[in-house]
Amino acid sequence: MPRIVVDVMPKPEILDPQGKAIAGALPRLGFTGFAEVRQGKRFELTIEGDVTEEVLEHARSAATTLLSNPVIEDVTRVEVIEDAQ
Amino acid sequence: MPRIVVDVMPKPEILDPQGKAIAGALPRLGFTGFAEVRQGKRFELTIEGDVTEEVLEHARSAATTLLSNPVIEDVTRVEVIEDAQ
Repeated sequence: MPRIVVDVMPKPEILDPQGKAIAGALPRLGFTGFAEVRQGKRFELTIEGDVTEEVLEHARSAATTLLSNPVIEDVTRVEVIEDAQ
Repeated sequence: MPRIVVDVMPKPEILDPQGKAIAGALPRLGFTGFAEVRQGKRFELTIEGDVTEEVLEHARSAATTLLSNPVIEDVTRVEVIEDAQ
């Protein structure tokens, strides 16, 4: 069944404590070469039936109202994928 | 600066209560046409300098040890992107 992927990331100007914690842990575990880490969310919405413009519009609206907090987060992607990606 | 994106999703056989909650909320908000929702994580690792095979190997190792819990999650993507995507 087709799926819509929605990616949500913290806005660049917003502090991301989870990302900061990961960035601090990486070199301690021997993983060097990284300057910054940001942690966001990824949603996979499985679609009932066909990908219509209405379903896509629903996904875009849901992305900005239910799946993200527009004060602190950006929706960076709303895209149909045919299988796992 | 180049970035490496790491996507982490709950394994298909693992219950995803956040995804279930979203799937229940969607029709109540008028967003119909979705059969299932899964919520995962998306990381953006900013690279210091060039993308070398060593940095990529570090990112892959970090993805399976620090960024995901292999008991309940799958790393579905480790990929270099040039700008926001």
